[in-house]
Amino acid sequence: MIPAPYHLYLGHSADPLGIKTSRGVAMFRPADCVGEFRHDDCPQTLGLPRLGMAEAVAAGAKTLILGIAGAGGKLGADLVDDAAAALEAGLNVASGLHQRLRDEPRLAALAEARGLQLFDVREPPAGLSVGKGYARAGNRLLTVGTDCSVGKMVATLALTRGLQARGVAADFRATGQTGILIAGEGVAVDAVVADFISGAIEQLAPARDDDGWDMIEGQGSLFHPSFAGVSLGLLHGAQPRALIMCHEPGRPHMRGIPGRALPGLAECLEANLAAARLTSPDVEAVGVCLNTSGMDADAARRLFAATEDELGLPCTDPIAFGVDPILDKLCPAPFARSTTASR
Amino acid sequence: MIPAPYHLYLGHSADPLGIKTSRGVAMFRPADCVGEFRHDDCPQTLGLPRLGMAEAVAAGAKTLILGIAGAGGKLGADLVDDAAAALEAGLNVASGLHQRLRDEPRLAALAEARGLQLFDVREPPAGLSVGKGYARAGNRLLTVGTDCSVGKMVATLALTRGLQARGVAADFRATGQTGILIAGEGVAVDAVVADFISGAIEQLAPARDDDGWDMIEGQGSLFHPSFAGVSLGLLHGAQPRALIMCHEPGRPHMRGIPGRALPGLAECLEANLAAARLTSPDVEAVGVCLNTSGMDADAARRLFAATEDELGLPCTDPIAFGVDPILDKLCPAPFARSTTASR
Repeated sequence: MIPAPYHLYLGHSADPLGIKTSRGVAMFRPADCVGEFRHDDCPQTLGLPRLGMAEAVAAGAKTLILGIAGAGGKLGADLVDDAAAALEAGLNVASGLHQRLRDEPRLAALAEARGLQLFDVREPPAGLSVGKGYARAGNRLLTVGTDCSVGKMVATLALTRGLQARGVAADFRATGQTGILIAGEGVAVDAVVADFISGAIEQLAPARDDDGWDMIEGQGSLFHPSFAGVSLGLLHGAQPRALIMCHEPGRPHMRGIPGRALPGLAECLEANLAAARLTSPDVEAVGVCLNTSGMDADAARRLFAATEDELGLPCTDPIAFGVDPILDKLCPAPFARSTTASR
Repeated sequence: MIPAPYHLYLGHSADPLGIKTSRGVAMFRPADCVGEFRHDDCPQTLGLPRLGMAEAVAAGAKTLILGIAGAGGKLGADLVDDAAAALEAGLNVASGLHQRLRDEPRLAALAEARGLQLFDVREPPAGLSVGKGYARAGNRLLTVGTDCSVGKMVATLALTRGLQARGVAADFRATGQTGILIAGEGVAVDAVVADFISGAIEQLAPARDDDGWDMIEGQGSLFHPSFAGVSLGLLHGAQPRALIMCHEPGRPHMRGIPGRALPGLAECLEANLAAARLTSPDVEAVGVCLNTSGMDADAARRLFAATEDELGLPCTDPIAFGVDPILDKLCPAPFARSTTASR
């Protein structure tokens, strides 16, 4: 496991979405985060003390989390320099980028010389198999979205904790670097060999014979031209009984693709349900999670009501308004009991 | 490049689909194939002389093609033994399996000791980027299918040669191991990291500004629970102007998934067109290719006619009946001229 406490890296990131991994760790593992590292040109903050590498070590940090996410996951020269500085100060380094820390000779040599560890959390597990789509027992929920970075992980974690608070067994199944850093396990599905996308998820969320839930973090969007293949394989591998649609109102274009509009919620939901039926014929949508952090509370409530009217599903912002409206639908009735027997 | 002539490996394969790579090389590179290697329990033949490794060397072979394809692409102990025997006899070895020859220490050591080469054609190119889906110039055709191994590569090659015979520039773009072994280049899309599926195809078939065609080999099926993610990313990356639907009549179940029925042609075609519109809004279906090798000619002709009536598209078996009915639709009108200007 990755030694805590953590020092969270923001680097030069000007884009709030670009630091979502560091933000996620700060949000869901607050007791394990001692500080944030950012350069003078970085306008972002997580509200943690701004510390240099040596200061973070003095404050007790054990690992620098390279929690920034660019499309393609490249490890730039800046990032290598900063990771080297962390190692020189005595910190382990963990990364969720595609490009591996251990493939950088300078970092590998520094880590070895100082007895420190490099963690590449996107490294897929060995021995994956292709998915088969055979019906398997258990309740599984998957978050899907209109786009990347619309709050699927946050919604999944909030729903998991909400179910647990109601006494229902629920396990978060991480599929991306942030989720893996929060949960301590999982598989970065966008980093597996393409043939094994659905198989990796079948392995991550195998059959379960209790009344509990596997809560699977979605990735990308069926409507994102970069990542739809990942989203579809994840959907088929998850074999979800329940889908949650996630969306960020007001986003001007698909993440990373200026000029490309987001799909409508109803269109996106129907496409996901249609695709999901290949391996889960009885799949149902059970709620909508909106990231309304850019709106005032009254506007958000009006949007929830309008969305509920349009789609016939409970709608909420899992962070600002909680997940009770969705949990009320998901549990106790009709899902919480007798589900495995009916499959 | 992989030194020819080739010795084609069939091994112990009892399944005709399991030797499709060896069969494809024999069919499309006949002048470069000197023999086939099969064990006593192998009921398959390609009609080539059955030769041991040393006999193949004596007949002029330079490379053993491990042309068998199992789901997941594992390199079993039998296969390693036979590859080692080939190296000991003086043959290079080429493989399209996921698992790499060079990762087998015994094979790597033998190749080095004897000055021979190991070719892993499924190794993805370095430096792939994520796809973007931006509109790009050029005519691109993609073959899609109801299932894996229904003749997409064969149809693509036959249509490519047919266009060339009519004086239209056409380039086959290989996306699987067999196609790569036949074409000498390409990218094994099921072997790339999942994030880069569509990006790999954008790189394989970039913008072209002539009136010619990039003829892109499809993979898998949107209806195959193992591989649909690959198929969808390929479809988005290909940004096809024209789709060809491929199917094998009478197949009892989806490849590798006993009990799972194939989709209907109309349903499958509509799903592919709907998904393709994300990056190619004007995509059209232009024909249906059936593998009728299990039928007599009259039954095949009746099926072509019934399929044409149902779908309103020319239908043929590209091997047994040629591709003229589809080429007549594809070229000259309305596709052959003025297409780049209209995009």
